[in-house]
Amino acid sequence: MRPYVIINAAMSADGKLATRERKQTKISGHDDFLRVDRLRADSDAIMVGIGTVLSDDPSLRLKSEEHAGMRKANGKDPHPMRVVIDSTAKMPADGDMFKKGLGRVVIFVSEKAQKEKCDALREKATVISAGRDSVDLEIVLDELSKLGVEKLMVEGGSTLLWSFMSSGLFDEIRIYIGALIIGGKDAPTFADGQGFTDPDDFTRLTLKDIERIDDGVLLTWVKKA
Amino acid sequence: MRPYVIINAAMSADGKLATRERKQTKISGHDDFLRVDRLRADSDAIMVGIGTVLSDDPSLRLKSEEHAGMRKANGKDPHPMRVVIDSTAKMPADGDMFKKGLGRVVIFVSEKAQKEKCDALREKATVISAGRDSVDLEIVLDELSKLGVEKLMVEGGSTLLWSFMSSGLFDEIRIYIGALIIGGKDAPTFADGQGFTDPDDFTRLTLKDIERIDDGVLLTWVKKA
Repeated sequence: MRPYVIINAAMSADGKLATRERKQTKISGHDDFLRVDRLRADSDAIMVGIGTVLSDDPSLRLKSEEHAGMRKANGKDPHPMRVVIDSTAKMPADGDMFKKGLGRVVIFVSEKAQKEKCDALREKATVISAGRDSVDLEIVLDELSKLGVEKLMVEGGSTLLWSFMSSGLFDEIRIYIGALIIGGKDAPTFADGQGFTDPDDFTRLTLKDIERIDDGVLLTWVKKA
Repeated sequence: MRPYVIINAAMSADGKLATRERKQTKISGHDDFLRVDRLRADSDAIMVGIGTVLSDDPSLRLKSEEHAGMRKANGKDPHPMRVVIDSTAKMPADGDMFKKGLGRVVIFVSEKAQKEKCDALREKATVISAGRDSVDLEIVLDELSKLGVEKLMVEGGSTLLWSFMSSGLFDEIRIYIGALIIGGKDAPTFADGQGFTDPDDFTRLTLKDIERIDDGVLLTWVKKA
């Protein structure tokens, strides 16, 4: 059994995750911020792609002490495991994800990653090879399952979201839509990558829930049965 | 007074208007189709960019006889005026927009458009020069106002939508979000063009209405006061 996969990200009303310069962009507000933190606290692992690490340097830690405390009270680590998909081991060893007290980091690389880079990262993280030329998400989910991950939250960026959504390896997609237009044909969208061309291939969804939060709206989609 | 401008288009859950090949893509269903036709019937003019004409060859006619009949009963032409933004006069003279009985077509060009092309188009449409290197939308709205247009519906594509939204020349944005993922970093999105880079420049919106239609949801945004 693979983990239950929740894709969660925020986009502008025109479908952008950030500006074309890929600067981290505030799309939601305080209430959505709390919702995301709760969702993180409720997950066993939080995943991002290496592009997001290189542009945002996120710690992926819980921001709310209360949420971290609730996890501890349930016998868990205060912060969920952080997972990075990083085919060629570009992960910087001095990033915010490696700050003290945040717990385990797992990095998935491919066989194309240089051995020295992987060895260096092994001093700070668990490094797992999962795929020849690129990281194979089915192997990743299998390995995460072995590590005890039952609920995985995938936060971005646009290429990793595309990989999960195009392969059908997800259970829920939660899209927060913010009250702004960013625009730009080169700005990252909720699903980049190659994209489908044949309508028979489109990933089909069912709209499960609609919730107004802050100035925008949260749509929860599930895979169409 | 410029016309009241309603931007209306459908996008996939990940913000795409079509596939990366720009093939017209079915995003909504029967009920939304009727909603769009009603909105067309209720408008004095319907506008698209030349890119949409070249890829889809739309007639922009009302599909429902009932809607056309209601307009006639109110003393109007059966179909609203069709308007194309076409800087260099690329409009094909044999397109579906020029089919008999559909009424007036107005084409806005810039001074860069060749005189012969404009003269050829004048046999089938009203051709108005509105801007030096590209078409200036403020002039367009002013000219449409003089032609009696009080309510304008802008349908796409992604570059024209960006031009309207980035310049603030709109009153409402109606985005139908369909239950599918198209993906693709090169697929057209709800707002392409150059895009904003400074958050101070973002077009800010207020969410006015949420309505479930078919398998998706219609969001109606207005400009933030």
